[in-house]
Amino acid sequence: MAKAHFIYDTSNKNADLYYATKFMAGDPFIFFQFKGKKYMVMNDLEVDRAKKEAKVDHVLSLTHFRKIAEKRSSYPSKYDLMHEIFQDLGVKHLIMPQESSFLLVDEMRQRGYLVEAGPAPFFQERYQKTKEERKYIEQSQKVVFSTIRMVRDVLQKSRIKGNRLVYKGKALSSEAVRSMIDVYLMEKGFIAQETIVSCGKDSVDPHSVGHGLLKPHSSIIVDIFPKSGKTQYYGDATRTFCRGKAPDGLKRMYATVKKGQEMGLGMVKAGISGKKIHDAITTFFTNQGFPTREQKGRMVGFFHGTGHSIGLEVHEEPARINKSDYRLRAGNVFSVEPGLYYPAIGGVRIEDLVYITKGGCEILSGYPKKLEII
Amino acid sequence: MAKAHFIYDTSNKNADLYYATKFMAGDPFIFFQFKGKKYMVMNDLEVDRAKKEAKVDHVLSLTHFRKIAEKRSSYPSKYDLMHEIFQDLGVKHLIMPQESSFLLVDEMRQRGYLVEAGPAPFFQERYQKTKEERKYIEQSQKVVFSTIRMVRDVLQKSRIKGNRLVYKGKALSSEAVRSMIDVYLMEKGFIAQETIVSCGKDSVDPHSVGHGLLKPHSSIIVDIFPKSGKTQYYGDATRTFCRGKAPDGLKRMYATVKKGQEMGLGMVKAGISGKKIHDAITTFFTNQGFPTREQKGRMVGFFHGTGHSIGLEVHEEPARINKSDYRLRAGNVFSVEPGLYYPAIGGVRIEDLVYITKGGCEILSGYPKKLEII
Repeated sequence: MAKAHFIYDTSNKNADLYYATKFMAGDPFIFFQFKGKKYMVMNDLEVDRAKKEAKVDHVLSLTHFRKIAEKRSSYPSKYDLMHEIFQDLGVKHLIMPQESSFLLVDEMRQRGYLVEAGPAPFFQERYQKTKEERKYIEQSQKVVFSTIRMVRDVLQKSRIKGNRLVYKGKALSSEAVRSMIDVYLMEKGFIAQETIVSCGKDSVDPHSVGHGLLKPHSSIIVDIFPKSGKTQYYGDATRTFCRGKAPDGLKRMYATVKKGQEMGLGMVKAGISGKKIHDAITTFFTNQGFPTREQKGRMVGFFHGTGHSIGLEVHEEPARINKSDYRLRAGNVFSVEPGLYYPAIGGVRIEDLVYITKGGCEILSGYPKKLEII
Repeated sequence: MAKAHFIYDTSNKNADLYYATKFMAGDPFIFFQFKGKKYMVMNDLEVDRAKKEAKVDHVLSLTHFRKIAEKRSSYPSKYDLMHEIFQDLGVKHLIMPQESSFLLVDEMRQRGYLVEAGPAPFFQERYQKTKEERKYIEQSQKVVFSTIRMVRDVLQKSRIKGNRLVYKGKALSSEAVRSMIDVYLMEKGFIAQETIVSCGKDSVDPHSVGHGLLKPHSSIIVDIFPKSGKTQYYGDATRTFCRGKAPDGLKRMYATVKKGQEMGLGMVKAGISGKKIHDAITTFFTNQGFPTREQKGRMVGFFHGTGHSIGLEVHEEPARINKSDYRLRAGNVFSVEPGLYYPAIGGVRIEDLVYITKGGCEILSGYPKKLEII
């Protein structure tokens, strides 16, 4: 039976749909792939732009199918239109993304279609980047590192005054640095959200974006993952800084995370299991005196994954370097970002992106790893 | 049978989920409302933050349910965990958003649940704004207008040089002005995407964001709809400018759109049908010599809706002021944004936001409507 891969969504939210069409739209449209050809069905507002911009074989007019459907019933629903389109081509079997609306799927099943869930992501080839995609990610990553350099300069120029960092006459806060980062990136055409600038207590919670004044002699985690407005590809990097001399405990922890990250960078290559890498780093940390465990009802140590696949989404699930058994493949782009978090010391995380090759990896751009800014 | 309203999604993408919880998260979590109480079930990374920030009655630990589920099977899936949670409370009937993953729904149905689609949006009360929501939207709208003022200043300061506008020694383009807008907004903590600065041919296509050099004596549509990073609520406004003297046809069209918009602002009130307003404006335009029709295979005239509901999403579907029969209610916030588009003249659109009251509307903030910048 003739199967079609079918997506109905907005391409500005659905990375698979953008991947398949290279067409950015805020309103939902019909896309399907059938007998090796890609189709889009567009309303009158978008049909011209789609013909110009979309990387598909056929752009069909929704109005055309509406006119046909209106011969059958006076108010055809969007499901009736989809039925009209698929009937026309003889499609009876639909493979749809797992996250497709169940109302849509129920409606298609009621019209006699066999609907099957595709894998996640829908286009598994997204995990293995083309040359062009690798280039786009590296371009984004270069902008991330230039942003981190800017942040380092700001911290460098700030003066230590008691328990505060004073920059241009004002006490520097997580919020202020986050705003500098997001504005800097916007000027370069990048959209950053949930940028992390966390210090002290906040830095111990890897999910906190950070709030309040930054302190000297304390770890400051800067984790930036913006999307290029032009290519739509993400960059993602983390550096941990300390303005002024760092306490010995923090210095030792930083050196340990740095070695752990180098261990990860040294292990990644096509064919290896992510679990092996993650376990090796966790064990190394434990052996260095930084165990992962529950302490007073919260986790301490290294309690997030080592890395995630990245591209058109910042986290391309479910490919991870963590306790799961994802096996790395050539062409994958992964973050390698171990961290350690203890309330008494602070948080440290160091993150780079790697392009996986047969024998190892290529690190996509780079920036020094140095804790203290003195 | 005990029904629960159930969402499993990320709150940074699902406005209903954010609306229900006021908790922003990039990873999916379980939310449900049962017997008048709101529940969230969070993993270890997020459970502390959720307890602090989320506006719900109970924050439960996912690990707690995982431990129970692991007594039944060694690798419980996320669906097994959901089953564990609902079993515990005696839930058998789930009302879920229409856009919920069909894989999730299939899995729940296989476990014996009756799954029913909720309305869209899932929380219909989103259409009727609270005082706080009204305030948030107005705050965002004020920032939008201050941005439009900035753009007007830039156009004012630019010099006309042949067919170009020269600003600070460089020919001004759609891209440059868009970047100024997006950076200006980011400095104020707002995220803008798909900002429209379209001129000439581009301005005739309401969906084009605009490309290339801006021209004098030609319509320039500036449509800005950013989201506040703080409140998450959108603003949305459009003004059309012309740097230098405008051709008579454009002037006449601008005056007509302005009158049409005033007509719309005068008609909106609780109880009226959106179709009535939309039809009145369309007819007015036709009577003024600006008919809506197909011309050489493309639409000209007024071929988009008059307005859309706005709040946590820029378009809160399906509430629209257009050919559909949505009946306005007190507390709705709608855009009123008629436009006219003819290849020979250009495009004109004027947009404000209104808060619907029993007897009419309150316009949320404002900015003059004047075409020419001379």
